[in-house]
Parts: sequence; C-alpha cells; structure tokens
Amino acid sequence: MKKVKFLFGVHCHQPVGNFEHVFDESYENSYLPFIQAMDAHPRIKFAVHYSGILYDWFMDKHPEFIDYLKKLVKRGQMEIMTAGYYEPIIPVIPDDDKLGQIGKSNDFIKEKFGQAPRGLWLTERIWEPHLPKILAKTGIEYVTVDDYHFISAGVPKEKMMGYYVTEEEGSTLKIFPINKNLRYLIPFKLPEETIRYLGEIANDEGTAAGILADDGEKFGVWPGTRKWVFEEGYLERLLALLDENAAWIEPMTFSEYLDQFPPLGRIYLPTASYAEMMEWSLPTESGKNLLRVTEEIKRQGKSEEYGQFFKGGFFRNFFVKYPEANNMHKKMLQVSQRLQTLKKGKSLFGEKERDARLDEAQNELFQGECNCAYWHGVFGGLYLNYLRHAVYEHLLKAEQLMEKYSRGKDDFADIVVTDFDKDGRDEVILSNNLLNLYFSPAEGGSLFELDYKPKYFNLLNTLARREEVYHEKIRHAAAQPAHGPGAASIHEIARAKEDGLEKALVYDWHRRVCLLDHFLGEGTDLENFSRVKYEEAGDFVGQPYDFMPQRRGSEVSLFLSRLGKVKGQPLKVEKTISLFARQSIAEINYELSNPGHEPLELWFAPEFNFSLLAGKAPDRYYEIEGAALADRTLASSGVLENIKQVKLVDEWKGFSVLLALDRAANFWRFPIETVSQSESGFEKIYQGSAVLFNWKLTLKPGEKWKTKIILRIED
Amino acid sequence: MKKVKFLFGVHCHQPVGNFEHVFDESYENSYLPFIQAMDAHPRIKFAVHYSGILYDWFMDKHPEFIDYLKKLVKRGQMEIMTAGYYEPIIPVIPDDDKLGQIGKSNDFIKEKFGQAPRGLWLTERIWEPHLPKILAKTGIEYVTVDDYHFISAGVPKEKMMGYYVTEEEGSTLKIFPINKNLRYLIPFKLPEETIRYLGEIANDEGTAAGILADDGEKFGVWPGTRKWVFEEGYLERLLALLDENAAWIEPMTFSEYLDQFPPLGRIYLPTASYAEMMEWSLPTESGKNLLRVTEEIKRQGKSEEYGQFFKGGFFRNFFVKYPEANNMHKKMLQVSQRLQTLKKGKSLFGEKERDARLDEAQNELFQGECNCAYWHGVFGGLYLNYLRHAVYEHLLKAEQLMEKYSRGKDDFADIVVTDFDKDGRDEVILSNNLLNLYFSPAEGGSLFELDYKPKYFNLLNTLARREEVYHEKIRHAAAQPAHGPGAASIHEIARAKEDGLEKALVYDWHRRVCLLDHFLGEGTDLENFSRVKYEEAGDFVGQPYDFMPQRRGSEVSLFLSRLGKVKGQPLKVEKTISLFARQSIAEINYELSNPGHEPLELWFAPEFNFSLLAGKAPDRYYEIEGAALADRTLASSGVLENIKQVKLVDEWKGFSVLLALDRAANFWRFPIETVSQSESGFEKIYQGSAVLFNWKLTLKPGEKWKTKIILRIED
Repeated sequence: MKKVKFLFGVHCHQPVGNFEHVFDESYENSYLPFIQAMDAHPRIKFAVHYSGILYDWFMDKHPEFIDYLKKLVKRGQMEIMTAGYYEPIIPVIPDDDKLGQIGKSNDFIKEKFGQAPRGLWLTERIWEPHLPKILAKTGIEYVTVDDYHFISAGVPKEKMMGYYVTEEEGSTLKIFPINKNLRYLIPFKLPEETIRYLGEIANDEGTAAGILADDGEKFGVWPGTRKWVFEEGYLERLLALLDENAAWIEPMTFSEYLDQFPPLGRIYLPTASYAEMMEWSLPTESGKNLLRVTEEIKRQGKSEEYGQFFKGGFFRNFFVKYPEANNMHKKMLQVSQRLQTLKKGKSLFGEKERDARLDEAQNELFQGECNCAYWHGVFGGLYLNYLRHAVYEHLLKAEQLMEKYSRGKDDFADIVVTDFDKDGRDEVILSNNLLNLYFSPAEGGSLFELDYKPKYFNLLNTLARREEVYHEKIRHAAAQPAHGPGAASIHEIARAKEDGLEKALVYDWHRRVCLLDHFLGEGTDLENFSRVKYEEAGDFVGQPYDFMPQRRGSEVSLFLSRLGKVKGQPLKVEKTISLFARQSIAEINYELSNPGHEPLELWFAPEFNFSLLAGKAPDRYYEIEGAALADRTLASSGVLENIKQVKLVDEWKGFSVLLALDRAANFWRFPIETVSQSESGFEKIYQGSAVLFNWKLTLKPGEKWKTKIILRIED
Repeated sequence: MKKVKFLFGVHCHQPVGNFEHVFDESYENSYLPFIQAMDAHPRIKFAVHYSGILYDWFMDKHPEFIDYLKKLVKRGQMEIMTAGYYEPIIPVIPDDDKLGQIGKSNDFIKEKFGQAPRGLWLTERIWEPHLPKILAKTGIEYVTVDDYHFISAGVPKEKMMGYYVTEEEGSTLKIFPINKNLRYLIPFKLPEETIRYLGEIANDEGTAAGILADDGEKFGVWPGTRKWVFEEGYLERLLALLDENAAWIEPMTFSEYLDQFPPLGRIYLPTASYAEMMEWSLPTESGKNLLRVTEEIKRQGKSEEYGQFFKGGFFRNFFVKYPEANNMHKKMLQVSQRLQTLKKGKSLFGEKERDARLDEAQNELFQGECNCAYWHGVFGGLYLNYLRHAVYEHLLKAEQLMEKYSRGKDDFADIVVTDFDKDGRDEVILSNNLLNLYFSPAEGGSLFELDYKPKYFNLLNTLARREEVYHEKIRHAAAQPAHGPGAASIHEIARAKEDGLEKALVYDWHRRVCLLDHFLGEGTDLENFSRVKYEEAGDFVGQPYDFMPQRRGSEVSLFLSRLGKVKGQPLKVEKTISLFARQSIAEINYELSNPGHEPLELWFAPEFNFSLLAGKAPDRYYEIEGAALADRTLASSGVLENIKQVKLVDEWKGFSVLLALDRAANFWRFPIETVSQSESGFEKIYQGSAVLFNWKLTLKPGEKWKTKIILRIED
C-alpha cells in the first residue's frame, strides 16, 4: 500500500499598526476556531507560527488562548515555529537584528511552550543564499520556502516530496519546499481533492511528504473563507477525511519528518520568493512586459514549459521602485547602526541601566522592522499610510530613547552630512530635541523627512502617485460600456471600491515632499498642476543643488544653491534652512537672483506636502488666516489669493503645522491620492496634502528677490 | 555634438596548476603585445586585472613586465583592478578568506604600483547580494558585472550607460554593467563597428559610457585571435580610430568616471552571473529543457522579449551537480575553518612564528581556492584532472602545515565523525601522519577521498561520467552520414578532437570511488560493466550503512554494516577499515553473511578507483603479480584470473598503490574516461582507473565469508 506523510503548517500574522478591530475579527473568525477544529482531531499533527505581534495581543486580550495552544503542544500534536518576533523580512535587516528578532521569538516560545523551536517561518519566503550562516547561530534547523524556489534552481517538481540541505560557510540548514498544488487546494477546493492529490504523490516506501505551510488567514480571514471553512464545514470535513484515511496518510510535524527521514539531497537556492512577489518587485515597465509575455505563453499552452525558467525581480528592489520604502529601510538601518554603536560603547549609566534602556530602544526598532509597510503586492502594504506611520513611530521612539540615553541635555542643534538613502550622494540632516529635517541636495535641495519628535511623527510620510501594473485593468474596465454583456467579467477584472478610479490615475514625476522649487509655465492652474499636465519652466525640481552645512552657536543651517535655468535663461536659486536648539521651528529663506543679461519673468511656486494620515476626518483640517473654507478637510482642494499663513491642524494627534510667509502669496492646495489594489479590490487612498505658494515676479539683470517662510510645529 | 565615454577593462588569468607552456604562450601572444599596443596610444585610458597567479609568474619569469606596467600606471593611462589574489569565486569562499585574498591582492598592487585599487574584477561575475558589506571592509568602491545582472533586476538596456549604487546593511558599492554589445564587438568585429556603436549610445550631455570589461585572453590567446588581433592589425586599428575620434570619444578609467559622474540610480541585484554560466549551473535535465525552449523562442523571434525574463540556475549548484566539485569545496571549507580556529587559539611557538607558519598554510589554502577546477562550462575546468589535483595539492599542503603546527608528534591515528560534505548525514575520517581516508556510510560505506600526505595527493580525485547538455550534439553528429553535404555544418556543431567520441558517452550511476560493494547479475562482463549496462543484483552501492567508529591504542577503525538484499534475498555485508599510526596502510576486512533461510548465490565485486592523472603515460602503469600485460598503462582494460596482488605505479610522482588480497580473485580493470567540451572542441579525458575484484560464492543459511584486502601506498 502506498503511503504518504502530510506536513501541515499555518502562519498567522497581523501588521504592526493594524486596526484593533482587525485583530478582534481575525481572532474570532479564524485563529480561535482553527485551533478548536484541530483540537477535536488530536491525531492530526501540524505546525503553527504566530508573529510576536499576535502573541503580544493574545497575552493582552486572550491569555487563555496561549494556554489552549500549550495544551496542543503538550499533547505532541502541534509544533511551534519561530520567525523574527515582529515579522521582518530576514535578509533586509542587519545581522544583529536578525539574531535579536529571532532570539526574542525563540525565548518567548521556550518560555511559554517549554519547547525550543527548530523551524523558522521565512517571512514572505524571501530567501538569500547567505542565510544559513546567520540562522545557524539562532539554533534554527529548518525553514519552509516555496517549491518555486527549487524550480528556480532547476529541481523538477517530482523531486520535492521531502526536504533538502543547504549550506553557507559550512553551516547547514534544512529546507522544505511548500507544495503549490496543496497551496491551491487547501482550503479552496473540496477536501476530497486534497485526499486524492495526496494519493497521487504517495509512494511504496511511505517517504513522500505532502508539504503545506501557508497563511492561517486563509482559514476565516480572507474574504468569504469564514463561511466556507467553518460554517459550511470545509475544515471539519478535511480533518475527518484525514482521520478516515489514517491507514495511508500520516500527519506529521516538520520536526518529526526530519527525525525519521534523510534529506532528498543538497541544494543551493538563488535569491527567490514566491512567483508573484518576484513579479511585484519588478519595475513597473518590466512588470507590464512580464504580464504580457506570461499571458502570451499561456495562450500558447506553454506556461509550464517556459514558466519554469521565467523569473521576476528581486525583493530588495522595492527599495528602488518606491523611494518611500527606501526611506523607511534606510532610517531603520540608521537606527539599528546607532543602537549597535551605543551597545558597544561605554555606558553612561552602568551596565544594567544601559541594557534596560537600550533593550527598550531595540524593541521599538524591531517593531519598526515589521515587513508589511515596506512593500506592495496584492495587499495594500506600503500604500497604507497608517502602516508606514507605525514604522516611523517605532523608529522615532527608538531614536529618542537612544538620544535620551546618550545625551545629557536638550539644548542642542546638530547638522550631519551622510549618504542616508545610499544612492552614492550626500544627504544633510538637521536636528534638535524636537525636530529632524532630512534634506537631499542632489534631488532639488528638497526636504524629504520631517520628524516631529514629541509625537513620533514623520510629517512627510507621503507616497507619490506611481503607475502600477494593475492600473491597466482599471483603465480597461472604465473603457467598457457600463451595462454591456461583459459587465460581470469587468467586475471580476476590476473590483473597484468606488467609481471613477480611472480619473485618479495620475503619476507624479517626483516625490511629494517639501521645498520643491517649481517655476510654472503659462497656463498652469490647480487642475493641470495637480494632474501633472502642466509645463515645468525651470530645471530645479529633482536636480542637484550645491550645499554647505553651517553652525553658529546653537543654530545650524543648511545653505543650498543651484544655478539653473528658467525657459532657457539662467536663474540662481538659493535657500537657507535654519534650526535652533529647543525650537520646533525651521526658518526658510529663499533668494532668487538673475545672473543673466535679460529680464526674467518668473512664476515661482515652492511646493510642500504633509501627511496627517486622514484626508477627510473632521479632526484634521486646514486653518487659513483670512479665509473661511467651505471644505477645510485635508483632502480638499482650492485656490486662495493673498495668503500669508496656513495651518494644518491634527486634533487627533494634538499638534499643528504652521507655514507663515513674510509676503502674501497665491495659495493652492490639493490632496495626493493613490490608487492601489487590496484584498477586496481597487481603492483610492489619501497620502497627503500638497500645499503650493506661488508668486509671479520679474527680475531685472542682477536683481534679487527674497522671501522667508517659517515652518512651525506646535502642540 | 554628442559625446561618449569609453571605459575599457581587461581581465587576465591562468588557473593554478596550468601548464607552464600555456603561461609562456599567453605572455608572448597576448599579455605583452596587448600592453605594447596600449603603450603606443597613451591617450587611451584603460583598466587591467591580472590574477595573482600571473603576477607570481611575471615576477618569476618576466620581472621587466611589472616595470612596464608601472610605466603605464604612472602615466595615468592604466588603472589596476583587484580581485581575490588566486582568483576564487568570491561568494563561495569564507568571509575570512574573502578578506584575506582581496587583502593580499590589494597589498601587492599598493606595493608594486603605488596605487590602492578602487575596483574589483568580480571573478566569473558571480554576484550575491550580501557582498557589499564584506567588500566595504576591503576598501573596494566598485565592481563590474554583466548587463545581464541588471536585466535580471528588470533594468532596461538603455539605462545601463553608467553605474549604479547598491547596498548591504548600509555599506554601499558601485556597480558598472558590462555592455554585451561591446563584448561581442571587441575584438571580434571590425573596429569601425565599435566606433559606430559608440556613436549610437553617445548623448548630448556626454555622460553616456560604453562599458567593456572582459577576458584579456580574447586578445591573442583564444583560438585564432592572435592572428586577427595583432598580425592583421585589429587592435592597432581600433586604437587608431579611438584616437581619430578623440573629439567625441573619451577613453576613461572606471575610477575617473566615478569621480566625474553621479550614479544612474540605486539597484539591488539578485544572485546572477552571465547568462551562459547560469545555464551551465542548471541540472543537466533542466539545462536540456532550457536549451530546447531557448531554441524554440528563437525560431519564434521572441528571444529578446521572452529572454529578458529567462534565468538559468545558480552557480553554487555546481556543488550539487558534481559531487566531486562539492568534495573540493567542502575540503576547502574544512581547511579554512581549521585555520581560523588555529589563528584564534593559543600559539605553541610565539606569535611571530605562529603567524609565519599559519600565513604559509593560508597561502596554500588560497591557491586551493582558485575557481577554475570547481565548475564546468565551455572550458574544461572541473573535467581537467590536473586542475583538480592542483586544488587538492594546495589544500593538503595547507592541512599538513597546520598539522605540523598544532601537533608535536607523528604517531597518531585519528577518527572523526562529521558532516563533511554537508548533506545532513555523517561522514567518517580516519587519518594518521601519512593518510586521510574519508568514508561515507550513507553512500554505500564508500571511501571517497584517500590522501597520500607525503605527496599531497588525493588518489580518489576521479570524476564520474555524467550526461552533459552538449553531449546531444555529439550523438547528433555521429548519426549523420560521414561525407554528406552537411559535413561542414556537422563539423561546426561538434568539433571533436577524435573520432568515435559518441561511444564514450557512458553515464555512471555512482561516484567512481572505492569500496563500492557490487553484487553482479548473471551475464555481467567487463564490457557491459564498464559501459554500465549490467544488472546490479544487490542494493549496497549508494545505500546507507550503519557505522561505528572504534579506537584501540594507536589503531583506529571504522566498522560498517548493512543488512541489504541480493536478488530479493537478505544479505549482510560488514566491512572494517583499520588504520595504524605511522603506517600508510589501510586494512580492509569484509565479512558477508547469510541471515536468511535459503542458500545465496553471490557474485561479489568490490570496486576501487584510483586517479594517477595520466592514463597512457609510460611512467604510470599496472604491475600485477603473476601477469605480464601487453598494455599496462592505466588506461588499459582487461580481465585476469586468480590474482592476489595489483599495484598501480606512479614513477612521475614517485609512489605506488598496492592492493593485496588474502584470497585470489578475478580481476577486472578499465579506464574511466569522460567526454567534455573545451575551447577547441570535444575531448575525451582520462579520469581514473577502475579496479574490480570479484568472486562467485555460495552462502548457506547462517554461513559467513570473509576476505582481507590490504591497501598500501609506498614511495
């Protein structure tokens, strides 16, 4: 009789910064009933991974659930897998943090379940070949990845019913390939089909393993699955069938399988993740090409034959595709590096006190490494401003804990020149006890991060509007007749949460940050400017500025200048940004001068963008001196003349951002809203508010024009 | 006027262990005349990399050449690039050795040329994403890789006329993509075509760079290139044209370009090499599929469109594809790890003496890391036994230097159980001052490495016969009519160095090592056994044996046993291998017993294989007691009866291998010859001599049968 082992693992996770009600619903609809179902079938062994975020929540809200889990562990039915505690992408965080995050998770599991974890759930299955060396230091014996990883190495599908051994510098690691067929069968097809498939892969020796490790949220959290999996009895039926077929299907934990069977062989896996992730990480143009080619070979019936050699991009290029993701990643590296430096340095407080303070900072850092906000695929991820905000919040908390640890006083103002974003060109950071201002001289002398420290808030946590591969579907759907016979299929292609999304498909040519020195062409208005259909008459935005950092007593300032052109005529733009100790004020001085021999007609329009998380909330709004706004929400748009002061108020967090000018300006405002896909369809998301001052002026040869802008954050 | 920068680099290298005459010819035909040509055009800046193996040879044979190079460096015409000194594949050697090998190369360049190298020639362009962190520690600022690496990350071809910045844990590295068009143009097409192509990529800003870094051997060493490049004036013409077009083509070193121009952007590259390397590293079956698919899409005219997403395998899987390559790699790791342990340990001799001794061992280790013998593509590489031998020779020298350093005495015999080959199962190593014996209990209890220490010689440095993707071409060519109209094209398809190669296309199902416990089926003879067309009646070869390491005074032994089957009947095979201090003798005791209830008819045939590097040399031969051989070379084959003693003599190295039996046996011998491709065509290579003893016997139930085999190595 042919036999088969069934290796079944689930991974459950909620992002740092997710809404409380999502935790509640996921627990009720999925996490709890799943374990209850397994509890009723004690013979069916399985493995689970919960991220530390969930453990923290269980401990807080449902400590009895931990005890419930313990019962299944004690019984020998359930194996607990580990990961980075706050679910980071392992290869993209520093080695010290890999060890720290996995160590924290291992310690928790040992303490709560009395069992040292042997297996690691590899977050998003992002594999890089140097991992075995560092994982060996955490005591990890095995990981699970997709069969796709093995296909990438040329391993045929039929040789994946077991595990392999890989190695780095002599450190070994065992790897289970997750079976794609099972991933598509469970829980989406009839349980009988799973049993039939297990029958197909069973062998005479009984060594074949049907390997599944997948998101636990497929059991009850994903749209429609609660009804199917629990109410309509899918899971109960699957478990009952497994019990009925106990004679030839043996459910087993990964560890048990390791102990009983030798590896199928050795393997080295290239950088890989699951196929979709590799597609998402491609630049959009390339992603569109891949989609076209994939559809073409599908029509030719060559998907399998050609597809085994097709590979998309590389996860880390999310940091290239989205500079905003890079911003978070490099901020995380900066915080991590600073922590390591402090750990190695002398303590100001004695070892124990040092350790406690730095441990607290480290825990904030680790929370800021949670992967979900750093990338985008079929879920919102990077597009969700509250997830990005959670990353900044934790990183800024870590930063300030370290600052308090390493500094004795509040009255400082620093200026640092460093290649922060790792593009080979220097950035400049001004900071005091209340603010951090990050400038990119190379990219238009722009201000791209503005942290208000008392609230752990990066006010420039915006996301620019960019083309995505799937936008084509929205355009295609919009172009169809509304009530034609194809309506259903259009609905299927593009489940938009609201109408008219195609109108929001506007693409920015620069990051939506601050101090973007526009010179507008004639005919520019709010409408065409906001839709990026205007003439940029200057060459300042995104272009390199010379810079000079300066310090005078308790004041630091950055001088930026560029000799550029407006409509072919030379123009010099100089701007100086100053920061004083203990003041949450940045003073911005602009000076425009005409070095040429002709008079210059200019329409100067410095742009600012701020992200206060909610565009249409009543507690977040504009307050404009001398203007009563019909719609004052942050998602409103409009033109006002002769404005000298604009305030963006956030009552929710309890602070405001004031921009005060020394000369009246025309004032434009409009929201930056992106269109992205999520598990429930396409949606428009408020990313921030663009604020544009503009003046029309003429400069004679040799003439100068100045203005001062005060940026003040107030509680 | 549109302008372009021309960045031109050459990389020159000869493998550790290559023949002296190859060095001589390469110098005369290529290395010297190339520099002479460049010397005559001082305006044409360029970069060179010579591997340390070449520097060592220049210093020894042509010290004046180093002075010549110095002249071009001083003039500012030539930039010197670095690499690992003995040209290892950087990602597959330990981090300590990466630092050591690159450091050694940097030190040499600084000392000889007064210039710290800024760029690294990435050997075989084997890229892995964690390299920037370790390279940053060597002071390296940039590397060159193929444009293919960038295509793998989704970067379009037109965005590759400059360099990018990548990063790991905050350490940055600049990367130049080598232009494939230029790689195919220079030196193979008319120089005018190169100039025309440079014209195509020139731009208004003059920032575009035509980037070429390629093998220097294409200029004079590759078949036919000496005539074309030098005698027929290709290179002189190219350089003259570059001078003539000085107004718009500016030759520049990589470093100069870095200093003048900002990067094109940031990038993260997946694991990659050039496309061909990635194809070669695929398992053969998968490689055949890729070849078929590639040809199919070529016929469809879709090579470019589909090909950008096609990726082959991963370099490290050469260690899976060829267990013999893995054997060298894991031996290298073992030696390297031991060296690091000794370096960190206490010195027996005082720091200075320790350092000198360990430095010597380290230098041997580094030579044993030279990449050429570890893989196979269009050059012989792994198939060349003298290159593999050079690897073992240096690793064994390193091992013995360390042994002398760490041990006070000669009279020891050790037994170590370790997962040497990193397959998750234990190997056992017996060693004394003269021999190392490496056993794999999991793979048939075989002996897979036998080092004779006084000669730094691994006698089991064989290579099994395996299918290669290109073998199909040989079969195809052989199937064509000999003098048909297609003769020319057949010649082109398969330039075989000798006729009848297709007959040598025999594939082994196990490594050709020692103590392979065959039980032959009826009808087996030398012919069908050697061609792997016989019936294996037992299940012992390649199957797991139980094992027990034993120690008795100055004797160590390994007891191996397997209860297996012969023609469905149970049989127990036990073998004990013993090693004594200070004796270059391994005593092998076999015991076969019948645990069943039926008598057993057995044809027992333990196989040995030895590799003495030359199959047909007069100074390497068989000496068989009681038999006068017509052909006694190691490539001879034949059957002899009633043999009790066989000797393989190597007069060249000055030692012999004796096998002495306590009971007479039938004796079969035949050569193992592989068929592989090289730069000049297909060739048959002697890998070793298979030596098979065999006895027909009957075992009654409960009965035992024993034999003792003495294996002795003598100077």
